[in-house]
Amino acid sequence: MGKSVFFRGPNVASIGGMSQKVSVVPPSGFRDFLPEEAAARAGLIQTITRTYLAHGFQPIAMSMLENLATLQGKGGGGDNEKLIFKVLKRGDELKRARETEGAELADLGLRFDLTLPLARYCARYKEQLPKPFKVFQIGPVWRADRPQKGRFREFFQCDVDIVGAKEIGAEVDCIAAILEVFRQAGLGDVEVHLNDRRLLAALGRSLGVADAAWPQVLVAFDKLDKIGAEGVLKEVAEKDLVPGAARESFAGVLALDLANQPSLWERFSSVDAESTASLHELTRLLGALTGTKVVFNPTLVRGQDYYTGTIFEIRHPSLAGSLGGGGRYNRLLEVFGAAETPAFGGSIGFERLALLLQEQNSFAGTSTPQVFFPLFDASLRGEVLKLAAALRARGIRADVFPDAAKLKNQFKYADERRIPYVAALGGDELAQAIVKVKDMAARTEESIPLDQFADRMEALCKTTRT
Amino acid sequence: MGKSVFFRGPNVASIGGMSQKVSVVPPSGFRDFLPEEAAARAGLIQTITRTYLAHGFQPIAMSMLENLATLQGKGGGGDNEKLIFKVLKRGDELKRARETEGAELADLGLRFDLTLPLARYCARYKEQLPKPFKVFQIGPVWRADRPQKGRFREFFQCDVDIVGAKEIGAEVDCIAAILEVFRQAGLGDVEVHLNDRRLLAALGRSLGVADAAWPQVLVAFDKLDKIGAEGVLKEVAEKDLVPGAARESFAGVLALDLANQPSLWERFSSVDAESTASLHELTRLLGALTGTKVVFNPTLVRGQDYYTGTIFEIRHPSLAGSLGGGGRYNRLLEVFGAAETPAFGGSIGFERLALLLQEQNSFAGTSTPQVFFPLFDASLRGEVLKLAAALRARGIRADVFPDAAKLKNQFKYADERRIPYVAALGGDELAQAIVKVKDMAARTEESIPLDQFADRMEALCKTTRT
Repeated sequence: MGKSVFFRGPNVASIGGMSQKVSVVPPSGFRDFLPEEAAARAGLIQTITRTYLAHGFQPIAMSMLENLATLQGKGGGGDNEKLIFKVLKRGDELKRARETEGAELADLGLRFDLTLPLARYCARYKEQLPKPFKVFQIGPVWRADRPQKGRFREFFQCDVDIVGAKEIGAEVDCIAAILEVFRQAGLGDVEVHLNDRRLLAALGRSLGVADAAWPQVLVAFDKLDKIGAEGVLKEVAEKDLVPGAARESFAGVLALDLANQPSLWERFSSVDAESTASLHELTRLLGALTGTKVVFNPTLVRGQDYYTGTIFEIRHPSLAGSLGGGGRYNRLLEVFGAAETPAFGGSIGFERLALLLQEQNSFAGTSTPQVFFPLFDASLRGEVLKLAAALRARGIRADVFPDAAKLKNQFKYADERRIPYVAALGGDELAQAIVKVKDMAARTEESIPLDQFADRMEALCKTTRT
Repeated sequence: MGKSVFFRGPNVASIGGMSQKVSVVPPSGFRDFLPEEAAARAGLIQTITRTYLAHGFQPIAMSMLENLATLQGKGGGGDNEKLIFKVLKRGDELKRARETEGAELADLGLRFDLTLPLARYCARYKEQLPKPFKVFQIGPVWRADRPQKGRFREFFQCDVDIVGAKEIGAEVDCIAAILEVFRQAGLGDVEVHLNDRRLLAALGRSLGVADAAWPQVLVAFDKLDKIGAEGVLKEVAEKDLVPGAARESFAGVLALDLANQPSLWERFSSVDAESTASLHELTRLLGALTGTKVVFNPTLVRGQDYYTGTIFEIRHPSLAGSLGGGGRYNRLLEVFGAAETPAFGGSIGFERLALLLQEQNSFAGTSTPQVFFPLFDASLRGEVLKLAAALRARGIRADVFPDAAKLKNQFKYADERRIPYVAALGGDELAQAIVKVKDMAARTEESIPLDQFADRMEALCKTTRT
């Protein structure tokens, strides 16, 4: 019988012929996950979901692709806009675009974060959503960044936002929920760094920086961790961004001692009393509520253009960058035609958190079956499947070997998957109406009458942690 | 204070100016989900995950984008290949491609199903995966199909596969897991339709159809539901695909009575005894194990090129198409250079299932907080947050209003979110060390001493189903 008749269509030869082998790896910067890591990631997502729900946030889901116009130009996404994966037009539209010099070849793009699409979503449904709207999202985003260690082109974000609330209650709620995720995941030693864009703006004015030059000063400021105070000062001097008379004062800000918090509060209170007072209250509330170290960090900038007030970052001693962050973006919804709407949100750096948990060996999920049924003979399939179904009905994860293969291979499979119990029903056992159950860790075996099997296994599985 | 200094970068004017409003809807064929629907979808995904795990399957996750070469040409994806969303090359590569007549402008594509990437994954990790590999995946796929009612360009698939098992145990395991999902989700009346590509091939030979013409006959055959027996016969006659002498016999197959299963088994046993016997055994096992109606349907074809044996579809009386389906694809891994590997898998039509559940009002998730704390005064924020944290530590979903807004608005919010308990801590209550708790459904109120609050709320929430 010719194998080619199994297939229809033009690819019969290449499937059968194996002449042109297709690569087995995903594109550069993209990842596959082996079962154990996939289970651990799913477990972490569950922890985040449960924690966000416990704090009163609601889940939503949004389109993962957006019209390019939504992603480009007005959303204040900063550098991320340059990293959009664009989706080619299709059919006649593509043909026309190819024939027109300089025409846009793409019409859609993959979302690069969850905040800009959320602003679109809130503007779309503003009449139907609760006020304020406490919302969370967990999902993939894409950035055409240069792939490097720990930086991927497809990664997950876990955002929590409150849209329509103006007081620091929104800040406390979001940041406390994020901190609780870290606690639940078993990660200690995190620190919250806080600042306020209004305070940064007041600082600029107090230094006599021109409004037009301020954005560039912030860009330089944002590099403090990477290029150091000297580098920032050099950039500012080269571009003549800070008036000569204020340079020393500016250098003083770069050299601030974060350990001396009281002096920071005092100093910045004279720069902008209002935002400093609000930051101080937020710091006090967050510290008291969560027991986490909360640091006022006047050099914190964060990249996005759309922030208008509080900004924050979560840091960890064994990590160079941040474990998460966010801020207030009271004017982003206006891009989508909504009225000025106060909003605050933050995001967990899912990939970095996963990496840290992996390093401290506390990254695991549940996917191992609790009971394994080898198949001694194809004629026993119906009986064995019935037993497995009885266990599943009691919430037990039960695995049946699909082929009546060599027993050695079947047991090797159970061993590799580390299944704690093996339940054997061969012809002899069936004749005696028993199942032989082996406890793989204890290396003990017991014979259980068929009519007591499900009860007994339920009791056994309850005592085994998997 | 000028607002523009809040922002840096080139987009200040357009954010502030609101002159060019960006559209609030996602691209055509893409969807956003409101909180209740998002919660219901998340709940359904949880049901599917739990059920697949109970059947011994392991989760994996794969890159959502693939190199175009992986998706194109060799995977036997049939018509789906034409529906790939292609991702534009970037930087210099794009520049070169634009300048070269007829050059490929894209290098990546969004996956159109989960089976082809799974084959790549299994070939990649073949040394590390258990044998057989029982695996499930839940995630988005994309097809540039013409959007229409119930058909979307971004949708979820929920696949379950066994790679490396050749007997019908794999078929029973996968199909039974899928049927259990429908049962758990509360959907009755489903039917399984079964056929075998080997049987279809034997049928073609028995009718004297040339090997080269058979793929086209299958294409016509596959349209039986849409164009009827007459339409299929017309297409076959026009293209002269079936020898004249066999046309009557072919017409007989198209007119088969599915209700008379015994006659079908008898008739097809003479066409191909082996595959008919295996189908018959599968039908018997599945029916006995699941109590579901299992139908031998010799006119079932399914579109994919890669199927080599059993094929199946799940149908429901109130749905024109299928609720899911799949088949055996014993040769797909060869595309990626692996040895011939028996494999079987199936998929749940997530969007259709969600739609059916919605229609029968059994589509709901859990996202409602159980207790709501209004904020009477900003000075009470710390006390109220502490109470909420104490409830969350006991697994209770507790929501605090972020602003000390008008009480009328706060209660309206709690009402709209249908939160069952409102816990009020104002200045008077704090002075008396009590919390006033209102049961919104029963319209009763009780005063609970602060030190008994968490205990009492835990007891109350246990009796309230949310």
